[in-house]
Amino acid sequence: MLFDAKKKLSVLGAERLEVSDISVICALLAKHPGVSFSSGEPASELYPIKELQEAFVEALEEPGILDYYDSDMGYAPLREWLAALMHEDGIAPAWVTAEHILLTHGAAEAINDVTELLLDAGDIVAVEEATYVEALINFRKQGAFCLGVKMDEDGIVPEALEEACRKNKIKMLYTIPNFSNPTGRTATLERRKAVLEVCRKYNVLILEDDPYRYLSYDGDVPASYLALAGDGGNVIYCSSFSKVIAPGVRMGWLAIPPALTERFSTFQICNGLIQQPFTHKAVYHYLRKNDFRTRISFLCREYGKRRDDLLAEIDSWLKPLGVHVSRPKGGFFIWGTADGIHDMMDFAKYAIEHNGVAVIPGSSFIADGVSGKNTCRFSFSKVTPEAAKEGCKRLAEAIKAYRSV
Amino acid sequence: MLFDAKKKLSVLGAERLEVSDISVICALLAKHPGVSFSSGEPASELYPIKELQEAFVEALEEPGILDYYDSDMGYAPLREWLAALMHEDGIAPAWVTAEHILLTHGAAEAINDVTELLLDAGDIVAVEEATYVEALINFRKQGAFCLGVKMDEDGIVPEALEEACRKNKIKMLYTIPNFSNPTGRTATLERRKAVLEVCRKYNVLILEDDPYRYLSYDGDVPASYLALAGDGGNVIYCSSFSKVIAPGVRMGWLAIPPALTERFSTFQICNGLIQQPFTHKAVYHYLRKNDFRTRISFLCREYGKRRDDLLAEIDSWLKPLGVHVSRPKGGFFIWGTADGIHDMMDFAKYAIEHNGVAVIPGSSFIADGVSGKNTCRFSFSKVTPEAAKEGCKRLAEAIKAYRSV
Repeated sequence: MLFDAKKKLSVLGAERLEVSDISVICALLAKHPGVSFSSGEPASELYPIKELQEAFVEALEEPGILDYYDSDMGYAPLREWLAALMHEDGIAPAWVTAEHILLTHGAAEAINDVTELLLDAGDIVAVEEATYVEALINFRKQGAFCLGVKMDEDGIVPEALEEACRKNKIKMLYTIPNFSNPTGRTATLERRKAVLEVCRKYNVLILEDDPYRYLSYDGDVPASYLALAGDGGNVIYCSSFSKVIAPGVRMGWLAIPPALTERFSTFQICNGLIQQPFTHKAVYHYLRKNDFRTRISFLCREYGKRRDDLLAEIDSWLKPLGVHVSRPKGGFFIWGTADGIHDMMDFAKYAIEHNGVAVIPGSSFIADGVSGKNTCRFSFSKVTPEAAKEGCKRLAEAIKAYRSV
Repeated sequence: MLFDAKKKLSVLGAERLEVSDISVICALLAKHPGVSFSSGEPASELYPIKELQEAFVEALEEPGILDYYDSDMGYAPLREWLAALMHEDGIAPAWVTAEHILLTHGAAEAINDVTELLLDAGDIVAVEEATYVEALINFRKQGAFCLGVKMDEDGIVPEALEEACRKNKIKMLYTIPNFSNPTGRTATLERRKAVLEVCRKYNVLILEDDPYRYLSYDGDVPASYLALAGDGGNVIYCSSFSKVIAPGVRMGWLAIPPALTERFSTFQICNGLIQQPFTHKAVYHYLRKNDFRTRISFLCREYGKRRDDLLAEIDSWLKPLGVHVSRPKGGFFIWGTADGIHDMMDFAKYAIEHNGVAVIPGSSFIADGVSGKNTCRFSFSKVTPEAAKEGCKRLAEAIKAYRSV
């Protein structure tokens, strides 16, 4: 072709798009099928298919639901349901009403809305040392710089955040406080209070990403940043139905401080993200007809058992080989380190190709892209007891063989 | 609240978001209900509701459809169906295969993808003198400047485009060649060839937006820019199922030149626009089970009749008062001018408030925001014969009264 279309790309199109390491592992796994501890998605056998089918049929009964929708914020009854849930569970302060809730195409669009409305090229976003890689990629496509802040089993280390704020003009802190992807860690209440205090002092906005909150297997989670901030107005809260219903429905939401609500609403139109209310309505019908707490309890039993099974197998097969893991209290992920492995990506490729077992190297989730080379993420959401055992056995073999290479 | 969140907005968030004049009219109409010639959406009583209900139930039979989808381009069978359709109808040159088709959240997301991947602040986009206002808003939120190019009943005037290209560094031409929103005009084959030649000469990319193509009431449409460009590689083609199925399904697509395909695919992930394949699959099932040509014929009969009815009523009631309209060969829109009305927005507000009838002022669709003050858009898609008559009668009364004020 004569026309050099690539020369027409914007700065974003030409320079800022990235592909994550995870897709490298997924591509390898597709070529060498095996036991996978790599998938971060829910177990499809747990999706409420029959209930969703009924809900979609009911949602479509009224043809007007397939018109362009008259609210840029999304289907109002679902926004009201969410506001009520957030109050019932103490997630939200009093100012959060349906008006401040925006329905989004998954939490991913929610994060992107925040990115486009708040970040300019050159802005700095503080993130947990290891964090959701798609968020990093999203912030960076806007030209922002992601600065990793030291964390431990109790969450972000406030002193490290304070130092980062003193030395850099940080615009926003992105945090996954509950059962983080990838570390499985939950920030303690004390840490949340201290982090919030630092953010107040340095005038930093917090984007609280909370998709795993309801997958809590060992009791309640600490108060949200949103609730702790009260009327502070410096927390945007984001969550999704991906883990509790199914990711493919692409339903997430944001709770947005009043000062910003109008901007988010207007952005929906300017960005072409016209709402899809038949899906909102179907999800709403599903939630009205099926008790949410019962659903959550069911999922917690199922996934809690998967966590325990995989932890037990890791203990038997991998601990003796110097693999150390944390015990997450919820979510989908176990974070580990392996003694004597200095390039986990190299090992991960080896393990897939030679032993048919996949984990995700931890460096994939780390903002600087170089540290954490002895870390890895295990996912247990889709792992049966048989797969847990077989996968750990294979990993043990892989480690032994890899070390001897 | 203590925190001044507005100070944290990006340039885009703070300065580049717009609300269209159309929403002003819609808000007024909500307060003063009446006959509306203003809605640009399809008639909801023509949506294939029963067929879609079946299609969604079938799509959800396989739980995996609610996983995160493994293709960033969207559900492959629907992309194949679209590629086949585009070849059957001569819309696409040989290089267009399913690999070059990206499924999008309506044509609006398709346009936004092009905007983000190709436009930087300061870029100039040539547009038809009167064009789809949401596209203008979308280009502008990226900081681009929209330059209107003179058109007449035969489409863009090539000499005017050439002059614009000589005097400005134009990156892209955005055009709706068939039954344009808002003018209802269709570019002739000669004009398309001449416009394509100018674009080639000045190295301008063309974004061809073609959502009305199948709503053709008086015979075939001329060849697409995409087909005319052949292997030229300077045309991106965009369309949607909004008009032929229903807008609320939010299903559009792009055909992307090979040089750019990978960028669009990667952008989906970076932008958080993870595909929603259950909707893709449902649309695919719908298309497999229901003949597309039969559906199109049905819609053309229905909408063609609505066009004829409204044109006849305009002729009886408004022509004698100096209202001149064109006769569109398809789509949803009739473009008019009214002698002696010098500020159509003012008149439009008057007509809603005093006579209970709504049209959209033409200036809403014009890039410079000031010309075309005697023009207006009539929509006939949702207008029954009774409403056509009553609305034109009311408009006639409004014109007489307004002129005498």
